[in-house]
Amino acid sequence: MSERHYLDYNATAPLRPQVRAAMLDALESGGANPSSVHAEGRHARALIEKARHSICEFVAGDADGLIFTSSGTEACNLALQTHLAPAGKIGRILVSAIEHPAILQTAATSELPVLQLGVDSSGQIDLTALDSALQDPTPALVAIMAANNETGAIQPIAEIGKMVRAHGSVFLCDGVQALGKMPLNMQTMHIDMLALSAHKIGGAAGSGALLIAPHIEIKPLIYGGGQELRRRAGTENLLGIVGFGAAIECAAQDLLTIDALAVLRDKMEAQLEKEMNRQKLAPLHFFARDIERLPNTSCFAIAGLSSETLVMALDLEGIAVSAGAACSSGKVTASHVLTAMGVADDLVQGAIRVSLGWDSKPADIDNLVACLTAFVVRQNQTYKDSQLIKAAE
Amino acid sequence: MSERHYLDYNATAPLRPQVRAAMLDALESGGANPSSVHAEGRHARALIEKARHSICEFVAGDADGLIFTSSGTEACNLALQTHLAPAGKIGRILVSAIEHPAILQTAATSELPVLQLGVDSSGQIDLTALDSALQDPTPALVAIMAANNETGAIQPIAEIGKMVRAHGSVFLCDGVQALGKMPLNMQTMHIDMLALSAHKIGGAAGSGALLIAPHIEIKPLIYGGGQELRRRAGTENLLGIVGFGAAIECAAQDLLTIDALAVLRDKMEAQLEKEMNRQKLAPLHFFARDIERLPNTSCFAIAGLSSETLVMALDLEGIAVSAGAACSSGKVTASHVLTAMGVADDLVQGAIRVSLGWDSKPADIDNLVACLTAFVVRQNQTYKDSQLIKAAE
Repeated sequence: MSERHYLDYNATAPLRPQVRAAMLDALESGGANPSSVHAEGRHARALIEKARHSICEFVAGDADGLIFTSSGTEACNLALQTHLAPAGKIGRILVSAIEHPAILQTAATSELPVLQLGVDSSGQIDLTALDSALQDPTPALVAIMAANNETGAIQPIAEIGKMVRAHGSVFLCDGVQALGKMPLNMQTMHIDMLALSAHKIGGAAGSGALLIAPHIEIKPLIYGGGQELRRRAGTENLLGIVGFGAAIECAAQDLLTIDALAVLRDKMEAQLEKEMNRQKLAPLHFFARDIERLPNTSCFAIAGLSSETLVMALDLEGIAVSAGAACSSGKVTASHVLTAMGVADDLVQGAIRVSLGWDSKPADIDNLVACLTAFVVRQNQTYKDSQLIKAAE
Repeated sequence: MSERHYLDYNATAPLRPQVRAAMLDALESGGANPSSVHAEGRHARALIEKARHSICEFVAGDADGLIFTSSGTEACNLALQTHLAPAGKIGRILVSAIEHPAILQTAATSELPVLQLGVDSSGQIDLTALDSALQDPTPALVAIMAANNETGAIQPIAEIGKMVRAHGSVFLCDGVQALGKMPLNMQTMHIDMLALSAHKIGGAAGSGALLIAPHIEIKPLIYGGGQELRRRAGTENLLGIVGFGAAIECAAQDLLTIDALAVLRDKMEAQLEKEMNRQKLAPLHFFARDIERLPNTSCFAIAGLSSETLVMALDLEGIAVSAGAACSSGKVTASHVLTAMGVADDLVQGAIRVSLGWDSKPADIDNLVACLTAFVVRQNQTYKDSQLIKAAE
């Protein structure tokens, strides 16, 4: 696929060359069973422990508290589905309305009562509502994402963590989209459980992790062999884990220069606005733009335009963007995130997510701006033509 | 690791060159999110569907009935943990005593009553006991593996499947070790649910599948996005799935010449016996040798010898074998399989599993025979010396 411009990092980031190299190395060494006692098995074990160490170090997690999973989704399920110990401590679940389906759908299957916390028009959690909900003496499992996958809106995680802990509740943070794009620190942010995923940072899909603080105990979601300290059975995804470790090391480096990504994103938004103005086109509506958001994400809509049409039109021009999240099997459905923010239906239907990453270049955004503007011009012309035809009839 | 002889295929088979090539191809194409609607996403989706088709075709499964999982263990958990529809239909669980921990441990967490079926001294299921258990009118979920991972013992799956179906019960077959080593056919064997894994046939660890017959409905184990027809959420392990598909195609080819592996295995057993006899050493005890077993597996013990010591001694000589299953985090524990077969404790403690596969060569078994014999001779000499010293004292 030459001459493509990939701007859908929040769905899956392209595999980093360093990850590819690390996975190729692991491929070369054959990939034995890390539970085997022979040399091949011990080598596989060492590779896994190296990745575990890198990930824990990056988020200030406890090395004995990392459970490798097959996805961020499985990590969320492991945290939410299995009863926390001591048994009966958790009596209810609090979630924000803009959580990923991995949280919302899983919470919906729980026997515990689930309370959904709203967000404001910028996509920020209502902290007053959270504080009020925490007054109830029944300890809660509070699931709030560090940054939203669709809008990039960042939540005040350290503040939330402090509030949750002060009330004796447990804080589960979905850090999948935040990882590598903003600092995540389980200690200073008082995160009890942190869900992560490799493929959002240039690792391979199929590898995730749940990190739990030393005072948290969980029951397994998957039973069988004694892997992951008896907390997650099944032969480990060696290649995926090796890739995850390599990706984390890159992400740690990236974080030092992450502002450059924000500069590129902001330039794209400014250029888009300028072009739309210059051509006297419908105004753009940016979401979560007035609050702290991920440096790589831009979510916007053009009134009257269907995002489905736009995504497909851009795809034909070689540009890959998305209409919200990619997790619904190719089905473009109305974003529950934007709906929770009170965005009008016609704008929700037209929302586009552009997300940049490690390999994004100015040419990518220049192309996007040119193609998107041209598309809107064409759409307007088609509309005007149809009106003229109607008037003439 | 040069000059190694890897004889632990039942733990994890070395990655096949064809799998490596397929995964490298997928790595090159970047690996987008298969749920994305853009070209990159559609390409990823096509790769997954191709693998799905290959796997279904190989075991005569329904294409809409394959759910990709992260392991054979997860596939077993998905089948056992989630309530089968129509709700309440299944009222109990029947398992054989020699099932993998993925079945036994998961069944042990069920709210349903669990009945364990014994095996004879060769490791074959007691069909009379199964028939008797099936007389109970409460429909059961019957979990019986096609072939045992430790001994290679093959069960009469078609017959079992017929019995289970005739009684209106549901048959879950753990086909993880059988896959690619004997024919598996969901139709002719009346298998309702089939658990498979990629890394036992030369794919990568981290990829498995549960196949279900059209009349079976299951609830998800992992909730979130709409992947796998809403039956298993989480972004798909693209590389692992691509590798699984490539490995299945190789396995299908292998099956045509699988007898050659049995010839190699039988030769090894005969040579070992001959050498032990020639050196007047303790007799070998082979397990499941008198019944139909996988062509690649040999499980045996030498009385008075610890398998742990032997595995480590062989490892130092460059030979990788295992002491039973590899799924207990490097811990060598007494085999529940051999114990269920009524094997005496001292032999259970000395059991070794040698398992061959696609890259096994005569030199591998020649080396094993030579090193193992030499080790037993040394052990005997050490024993004799210590007796002489004791006598002299």
